[in-house]
Amino acid sequence: MNSFILKGDIIYSKNREELSAFPDSYLMCRDGISEGVYKELSDIPETYKSLKLIDFSGKLIIPGMSDLHLHAPQYGFRGLWGDMELLDWLNIHTFPEEARYAEVPYAKRAYEIFIKDMLTTSTTRFCAFFSIHREATELLMDLTEESGLKAYIGKVNMDRNSPDYLCETTEESFEETLRWLSDTRERHYKNVLPILTPRFIPSCTDELMKKLGGLIEETGLPLQSHLSENKSEIDWVKELCPESSCYGDAYEGFGCFGSHGNKTIMAHCVWSGDEEIELMKKNGVYIAHSPSSNTNIASGIAPIRKYLELGLNLSLATDMSGGTTNSIIRIMTDAISVSKLYWRLCDESKKPLTFPEAFYLATLGGGSFFGKVGSLEKGYEFDAVVLDDSELETPMEGRLSLTERLERYCYIAGERPVEHKFVAGQMLF
Amino acid sequence: MNSFILKGDIIYSKNREELSAFPDSYLMCRDGISEGVYKELSDIPETYKSLKLIDFSGKLIIPGMSDLHLHAPQYGFRGLWGDMELLDWLNIHTFPEEARYAEVPYAKRAYEIFIKDMLTTSTTRFCAFFSIHREATELLMDLTEESGLKAYIGKVNMDRNSPDYLCETTEESFEETLRWLSDTRERHYKNVLPILTPRFIPSCTDELMKKLGGLIEETGLPLQSHLSENKSEIDWVKELCPESSCYGDAYEGFGCFGSHGNKTIMAHCVWSGDEEIELMKKNGVYIAHSPSSNTNIASGIAPIRKYLELGLNLSLATDMSGGTTNSIIRIMTDAISVSKLYWRLCDESKKPLTFPEAFYLATLGGGSFFGKVGSLEKGYEFDAVVLDDSELETPMEGRLSLTERLERYCYIAGERPVEHKFVAGQMLF
Repeated sequence: MNSFILKGDIIYSKNREELSAFPDSYLMCRDGISEGVYKELSDIPETYKSLKLIDFSGKLIIPGMSDLHLHAPQYGFRGLWGDMELLDWLNIHTFPEEARYAEVPYAKRAYEIFIKDMLTTSTTRFCAFFSIHREATELLMDLTEESGLKAYIGKVNMDRNSPDYLCETTEESFEETLRWLSDTRERHYKNVLPILTPRFIPSCTDELMKKLGGLIEETGLPLQSHLSENKSEIDWVKELCPESSCYGDAYEGFGCFGSHGNKTIMAHCVWSGDEEIELMKKNGVYIAHSPSSNTNIASGIAPIRKYLELGLNLSLATDMSGGTTNSIIRIMTDAISVSKLYWRLCDESKKPLTFPEAFYLATLGGGSFFGKVGSLEKGYEFDAVVLDDSELETPMEGRLSLTERLERYCYIAGERPVEHKFVAGQMLF
Repeated sequence: MNSFILKGDIIYSKNREELSAFPDSYLMCRDGISEGVYKELSDIPETYKSLKLIDFSGKLIIPGMSDLHLHAPQYGFRGLWGDMELLDWLNIHTFPEEARYAEVPYAKRAYEIFIKDMLTTSTTRFCAFFSIHREATELLMDLTEESGLKAYIGKVNMDRNSPDYLCETTEESFEETLRWLSDTRERHYKNVLPILTPRFIPSCTDELMKKLGGLIEETGLPLQSHLSENKSEIDWVKELCPESSCYGDAYEGFGCFGSHGNKTIMAHCVWSGDEEIELMKKNGVYIAHSPSSNTNIASGIAPIRKYLELGLNLSLATDMSGGTTNSIIRIMTDAISVSKLYWRLCDESKKPLTFPEAFYLATLGGGSFFGKVGSLEKGYEFDAVVLDDSELETPMEGRLSLTERLERYCYIAGERPVEHKFVAGQMLF
């Protein structure tokens, strides 16, 4: 079923610093897993020569990308209210809009648009916050399952410092979480998994956080949240958890920072100090670097070179709708851009992110959260997208390397729909 | 001929801080000049009711935008070599590629692509550097003339510190400039005007600069060049012109800084000091703010709020191919983004650019360089573009104001082709 051969111009990360490029070559998928690249048709073993050949000659074939942090109920208003400060943005617009997702028909209309649009991007896997509403969360899980995209999806927990119309009691928040987890198990999803999602420490009581930590200890469930996005948020957490030595340590104290060996994502980490960084490294926490959002909400620039040098688990994220784009390709170039400003304005010892490094983060960096994902090398799950750069005319045509063509596509066409998409060997279109 | 009525959702700048929005209204053009907006068909004077009505109901109608700084021969390689430092980028790629424009067939192929793509953007008027090659410059002027876009176009002068294959003698540079100006006059262009274009002080001898200054005194011709883009460039100018008190003063000393009352554009101004700023204000110099390029080449962030507060002539520019996008809409959102980082990282007293302010710079800010251009108010030259946001589905449809729809379009669809374009009352498509 999920076995075939693609022909085209194939590129993926060789390592963190370099790309492997195979012009006009053959890429084999067997039972949803990559068998790697063959330069000639004659190199393909005899037994596989009868597999269906799909000809994408002249087009770019790259690994699918992963988006490790986004808020699905905010998708409808991406690109709006960019002139507002964070608190006004939350209270005047974001919270009232999120509250609408209590109504399932509204959520359905919204999530159908979200999924339809996500299909057009280079993203094959994502991790998403939803709202506190269990039913709507389950609806989105169903829609994602049907789409063929793969995702971790979380019902949000909020039991304090939230408007009345978007706040649970501690009991209710935990009970609804258990019911959601049980519903999820019963549905036997192939593509979707649940992930615990306390919004962030300011909106969850100690009691709720401890209950979630206990649940992790019991089940090994993954967790996603926000960390050190802006300085006043950090001060607030210090007030709320005076016994903790840093924001990350507050999560750690509740058993919600990867210390049980469970997979954990923390979005942003713009202002993480040495102790917090150390703790993330020790626990294998994934940083979801969200440059577009960090710029848009004027949070700052995360020290991405420092995290790379320290060997932390690093990925890219749109953070819709703090961020405005749904394209991880655009996020790659945004990540490079802000790293250049960081180098120029903040610390000239931290050299800018290179294009191959950003590509690595977009593919293998985030992909590794999902398993053996993010490369077209033999043994990886077969997530691939096909890009058509033939409409991007240039008088230099024919003189550009494959890597140059990819870089050019990403910079000037990064928000255009991709041509074709495969997830775990399934051709979605 | 150029008289008609458009129906649609009309928006333009009321002033620097606010937008005027007219949902489902009528915009009249008479002989290429706007007659302003009518809310009802019945408000239109009887004599004009027979004018052709073009129905763009449900679409956004905004003023055409101006791009005050770009390098046309660099268009073919936008989005490439973003990981290189400026000097390598110039010497390894940019200069060799610019040298190819000595060959007219190559230039023709390249400029046809450039013009075809520029037509799809929100830009109706631009100011462009070409190469040192007179013939290719004239070719581009012909192609621009035919396209219906309006532009100031300049043959570049370079007589020092440039590779042999892309360097003129002082005499040759000046003579070719005179011949180009004479050719230009003979062609009686309607849409295109020449602009003197010394590349920047490091690539032009004092003698050449003085000759150009003399030509300005004689003819009142406009001039465009680069100013205070990065710190090592500023140091270099200090070495080359030790008698000048700042980079801007060096241009001023040669009569090339607007002191003869001629229109003058300086690109970048990232690191301009108080004296230079004062001189720009005194002489009415236009700053071509190029946020995408300043980020991409890691130059820094220009203090745009300071320039706004001081009331300088301010416009936006793509600076292709230091910048990667050809869309001034994208440049608007980039300008807002970098102003947020400037506020957060450099100076918290300089609040970020707002969306209406960025829109003002993209339309009236740059448009005023061309005359009464950049608005749809009565009396302005009729430059307009039509945007279709109907494909940007959202569950909030029907609840968004016209201004919100415009902001959303700019953030999430700013690099898509526009639907229709009018320049000085001529419908290009």
